Amino acid sequence: MRTSVSPRYNYAARAQHFRPSPVRGVFDISMKPGMISLAGGNPDLTVLPLEQLGDASARLIRDRGTEVLQYGTGAGVDELREALTDVMSLSGIRSDADDLLVTSGSQMGIELITTMLCEPDDVVLAESPTFVGAIGTFLGLEADVVHVDSDDEGLIPAALQESIRAVHATGKKIGFLYTIPSFSNPTGIRLSLERRRQIVEICRKEGVQIVEDDPYGIISFDGSVVPAMRSLDDSVVYLGTMSKIYSPGLRVGWMLAPRELRDRLQLASEATTICASVLSQHLALEFLTEFDWRASVETATGRYRARAAALVEGLEEHMPSDVRWTNPTGGFFTWLTLNRDINTESLLQRGIDDGIVFIPGTAFYADGQGTDTIRLAYSLASEQDLREGARRLAGVLS
Amino acid sequence: MRTSVSPRYNYAARAQHFRPSPVRGVFDISMKPGMISLAGGNPDLTVLPLEQLGDASARLIRDRGTEVLQYGTGAGVDELREALTDVMSLSGIRSDADDLLVTSGSQMGIELITTMLCEPDDVVLAESPTFVGAIGTFLGLEADVVHVDSDDEGLIPAALQESIRAVHATGKKIGFLYTIPSFSNPTGIRLSLERRRQIVEICRKEGVQIVEDDPYGIISFDGSVVPAMRSLDDSVVYLGTMSKIYSPGLRVGWMLAPRELRDRLQLASEATTICASVLSQHLALEFLTEFDWRASVETATGRYRARAAALVEGLEEHMPSDVRWTNPTGGFFTWLTLNRDINTESLLQRGIDDGIVFIPGTAFYADGQGTDTIRLAYSLASEQDLREGARRLAGVLS
Repeated sequence: MRTSVSPRYNYAARAQHFRPSPVRGVFDISMKPGMISLAGGNPDLTVLPLEQLGDASARLIRDRGTEVLQYGTGAGVDELREALTDVMSLSGIRSDADDLLVTSGSQMGIELITTMLCEPDDVVLAESPTFVGAIGTFLGLEADVVHVDSDDEGLIPAALQESIRAVHATGKKIGFLYTIPSFSNPTGIRLSLERRRQIVEICRKEGVQIVEDDPYGIISFDGSVVPAMRSLDDSVVYLGTMSKIYSPGLRVGWMLAPRELRDRLQLASEATTICASVLSQHLALEFLTEFDWRASVETATGRYRARAAALVEGLEEHMPSDVRWTNPTGGFFTWLTLNRDINTESLLQRGIDDGIVFIPGTAFYADGQGTDTIRLAYSLASEQDLREGARRLAGVLS
Repeated sequence: MRTSVSPRYNYAARAQHFRPSPVRGVFDISMKPGMISLAGGNPDLTVLPLEQLGDASARLIRDRGTEVLQYGTGAGVDELREALTDVMSLSGIRSDADDLLVTSGSQMGIELITTMLCEPDDVVLAESPTFVGAIGTFLGLEADVVHVDSDDEGLIPAALQESIRAVHATGKKIGFLYTIPSFSNPTGIRLSLERRRQIVEICRKEGVQIVEDDPYGIISFDGSVVPAMRSLDDSVVYLGTMSKIYSPGLRVGWMLAPRELRDRLQLASEATTICASVLSQHLALEFLTEFDWRASVETATGRYRARAAALVEGLEEHMPSDVRWTNPTGGFFTWLTLNRDINTESLLQRGIDDGIVFIPGTAFYADGQGTDTIRLAYSLASEQDLREGARRLAGVLS
């Protein structure tokens, strides 16, 4: 059906479904001097060996410029795909590089799998709350997002079973289950291995495809890694990214999918971007093979751990007693529940006026839930700013 | 409607519409030693000042790494957008940087505008023949491609008028007219200013949106530039790219569109890739502001001119008398018409066996036309290889 969004353009119906991301919306505001931004999930890049990475880049362009500045294959640079299988092995995944497709960031992986498996009005099951960027893509591609209940330990297997039953009862098709089991965006919660097993089993039984998004799995404060769902079932589509462990600006992500599906995803990928930036892919390859990248992730993770602790301390010190928050053991975020009859969207402007930016929780639902919730990112702010941010936020709430 | 492409996956209908690109299909074969590839439209990157570009890259990462390796804005780097308005001014376009959206290559621009303006079964009008990658995207997004007749001078205005009438008579909606007016891929033909005016006038009268794809406009053998359609009408959506004048591997393209449409395109763009590679954007900005990039394009264009001449000489010397070809005055391609009852797809394997790769003409039509045609790219082969390639191709034809 045609929309009437403009008297001038005869937009396709889907045109009206793309919505502005609240995270992108406060991008500029977050840059203001004196502002404490707990909004964007930006990694700390000051841990990177910039001097050496710059040298590597210069070498690549000088010595192999006619290759790294030229068109690349749709699948991605072969050596990078090999190196990425090693990255995934840290999460218990055994994979073949040929099953891997390099994308221009893993947001693109979300877009491609939705394109491939979801007709308009098909259902995407998604834990509640979930990544705002994924919701934007699902809605833009006219999928119907159905949230599956979560608790303090993440996605609830029994609730998933019930949601599948309820969707099937409506006669609708389920495109897939979208989940971030490790240090979820926005809650920071990590799902137990036992629940992962149950969820994989339910989806296998019900014929529901799992799409596992895993940007944060190895950013674990105590170094422990819970095996990825993909390690439990080869049919799981796994999305990975260099954005949180290296650089988001290079736009290098990847998808691991069973061969036939992967090959189709590549055709859709080529129809969108032809290939990911070849220079970016080589800079990712350099990072994974010529640098002690695990030490870099460890250093960054140590900072995130200290920052999470500082934020939680600040919250404990300043927050009213009815406010609750998750206590993250990895990743970039904590999730506040105010337990009040209030819409946090209406608090954002006051927060900005008081020098604190956050993302209102409704952004992480497709259906208006989450009015009394807030996502706080601790990944980039200093410990001092995080404590001060908690104080400012408490002031806004009172 | 569901497809039955696999017993395993419940693919969306559109999944079956993405087709392998014949250009990508011969990517590997083209690399074989001894093979003369006239297949891919790859620019000659040996004209680039690789040493200095490498230094620029090192400087960017070393001095501004936490910026150029971090997330960027969805619109693109502001200074780059400014610089791109200067690039477009060479084609007669006066533009505001705020109307410009940076994309991960202009293939993505094609995907975004189709997403925004075409429902499934809506019509895309496209000159015949046209860019294979665009056809792939249109079909993948389930548009109905209707080819508009062209002659030796390009798209025929009267044929466009007739096509619009015919589509309207079926009750179908027209998403837009897609055209490459300057040194078309695959024909190399440049449309006259007079025809551009007529086409813009027809589309204005009929309410048909124009999407002008312009990768080659300033790669003109005699230096002359015919003003872009966008210079004649601000409502034209203009697609530009750094791929042919600088580097395809960086994946930097752009779209110029009226503000409201542009803003919606940005939302869809963010849902796909968040932003184009920030490092790539800065390397594009460096090229456009710190280097004599026009001299670089001039040097490359001189080579393309000499190569086009060598190929045409070879064709004149070796081809049977019933074969015709376009005589390009810019861009990367010439287009052969065999005037025989033959499908050139069946000749490709024989060509490969004889050490010559080309793209069969059917790739450049959505509907099976072009069986007796061939696209030859002269952009990357040496003059000697181009002459020898013409000889080998003539051998295959005889």
